[in-house]
Amino acid sequence: MSLAEQVLEGNIRAAARLMRDIDDGRPQAIVELKKLYSQTGNAFIIGITGPPGAGKSTLVDQLTASFRGRGKKVGVVAIDPTSPFTGGAILGDRIRMNRHSCDEGVFIRSLATRGSLGGLSRSTSDVALVMDALGMDIVIIETVGVGQDEVDIVKEAHTTCVVMVPGLGDDIQAIKAGILEIGDIFVVNKADREGADRTARELSTMLDMRNTAEGNWNPKVLKTEAQRGTGIEELTDEFLAHRDFFLSSGTIHHFLKERSQRHFIGILRDTLLNKALLFMAKDDYFARVITEMSDHRIDPYSAVEDLVSRMMSK
Amino acid sequence: MSLAEQVLEGNIRAAARLMRDIDDGRPQAIVELKKLYSQTGNAFIIGITGPPGAGKSTLVDQLTASFRGRGKKVGVVAIDPTSPFTGGAILGDRIRMNRHSCDEGVFIRSLATRGSLGGLSRSTSDVALVMDALGMDIVIIETVGVGQDEVDIVKEAHTTCVVMVPGLGDDIQAIKAGILEIGDIFVVNKADREGADRTARELSTMLDMRNTAEGNWNPKVLKTEAQRGTGIEELTDEFLAHRDFFLSSGTIHHFLKERSQRHFIGILRDTLLNKALLFMAKDDYFARVITEMSDHRIDPYSAVEDLVSRMMSK
Repeated sequence: MSLAEQVLEGNIRAAARLMRDIDDGRPQAIVELKKLYSQTGNAFIIGITGPPGAGKSTLVDQLTASFRGRGKKVGVVAIDPTSPFTGGAILGDRIRMNRHSCDEGVFIRSLATRGSLGGLSRSTSDVALVMDALGMDIVIIETVGVGQDEVDIVKEAHTTCVVMVPGLGDDIQAIKAGILEIGDIFVVNKADREGADRTARELSTMLDMRNTAEGNWNPKVLKTEAQRGTGIEELTDEFLAHRDFFLSSGTIHHFLKERSQRHFIGILRDTLLNKALLFMAKDDYFARVITEMSDHRIDPYSAVEDLVSRMMSK
Repeated sequence: MSLAEQVLEGNIRAAARLMRDIDDGRPQAIVELKKLYSQTGNAFIIGITGPPGAGKSTLVDQLTASFRGRGKKVGVVAIDPTSPFTGGAILGDRIRMNRHSCDEGVFIRSLATRGSLGGLSRSTSDVALVMDALGMDIVIIETVGVGQDEVDIVKEAHTTCVVMVPGLGDDIQAIKAGILEIGDIFVVNKADREGADRTARELSTMLDMRNTAEGNWNPKVLKTEAQRGTGIEELTDEFLAHRDFFLSSGTIHHFLKERSQRHFIGILRDTLLNKALLFMAKDDYFARVITEMSDHRIDPYSAVEDLVSRMMSK
């Protein structure tokens, strides 16, 4: 039985192996993903992003418990780009694993994307696909920070939740603009801290200024204390409300089309480049052209044209 | 006479027009760049990066004057990604234009990269090439912030100078790690401010921990007050010292090879993708495949394979 078939039968170990292959960038992973694809599209994908220290891991842990309490199977993908800074996140993962480790309805995986073929967001999307195929109803993608990479990652999610905390000051001010656009739900976590109401109010004001047309989703700002479990059920309700809106308003059709385009173009770009690199590997073509460019004997545009016409005429 | 020929004769207006074409992403710009390429490689390219508010524009202005005082022609490329936040930078540009506007040995251009074909760093590199062809001895590339885009941009420079200021606090702490690796020269600007010595000391300590092998360049930390012109000549000396090292140590060969590879691969990727998009534009192929993907009837990997084999068999 292929790895894909085993995953579709709910085999957790097969899923873990396929995810590892995706993370390592093994070509065999693509063969298996192809077999899974037609059986997917059922899971609802949630993206959780926000600055480091906002308490995202704890919040995801509580959300997992809450969705479980409502009979949903939950997959969690924690993005840990290989970096000395993510030691904490990996540790956090282990702690969560312990809590949910006896529950077959929870599957947690961290993604390091060591050998990522098409960038972090494609690996994330592929791992979410495996969780979908495994029968998870909800897949939560959790990012570490809030940079451009993270924005690209949460684009893969149906619902994006931005987690803030009081008292981050100017840092937040600087990233607010970009963050407002990607969030469907906003959470002020550690709401017992001083300034929580002010942070929530500021966010609400900025969201009000966001130009939302009639019939669009209106993002709310919720307050939570993930550590104590306060506000979690309300947040879960809000996720489900956004899912209902997403499905009933037809937003999902637009979302699926955009995501398909993005995936298609991204994979197309990499496939064509790989073909060209293979073509050049035959003789010392690449080394020769790079030397000529370094000596300013040929410009890069002409060099590329030359290569492409050779490839096409072959 | 072609635009390229006019640029090579030192025609400032022709250079300005070609840069605008690059910035707008016009295909004709590439035709002209090809003609220039073999006549370039003479300018020394300096990258200036650092957080907003570090006083980079003022520093660049003073450096320009200093290099002029040593008989060098100076080109300045200020990167202003189109964004509401760059109003300040554009204004700063105008101010600088006024000061040097009567000097034919100074050419200042800001790059908005509205229609950039291959991203900000390629446009920057192409504009620097035009300045090189125009006969500028020194080309200074100035970025607005210190994100991944900026790191990619300063990779195009022979020498990268990172500008810091005292008292930016945790913000800097967070970006320090990445910044240490790209800097050849470090400047603590606004050195009259409280904490300047401490910032310089911290930087030096971190640089000492950086693992530099025997025979490598050892980055220094200099202090400047760009507003008053203090420390500028020392900084100019340091730039020239790094250039000497760059040329005499052979570092330049490695640099040119890496840069050529990066340019070649980047242009190759875009060229191939454009060919595929043109190929798909013929019928409703693209729309059809996106619909099939959205419905999970075909996976993106198989869809791409199908397209590529059609393209190649044609």
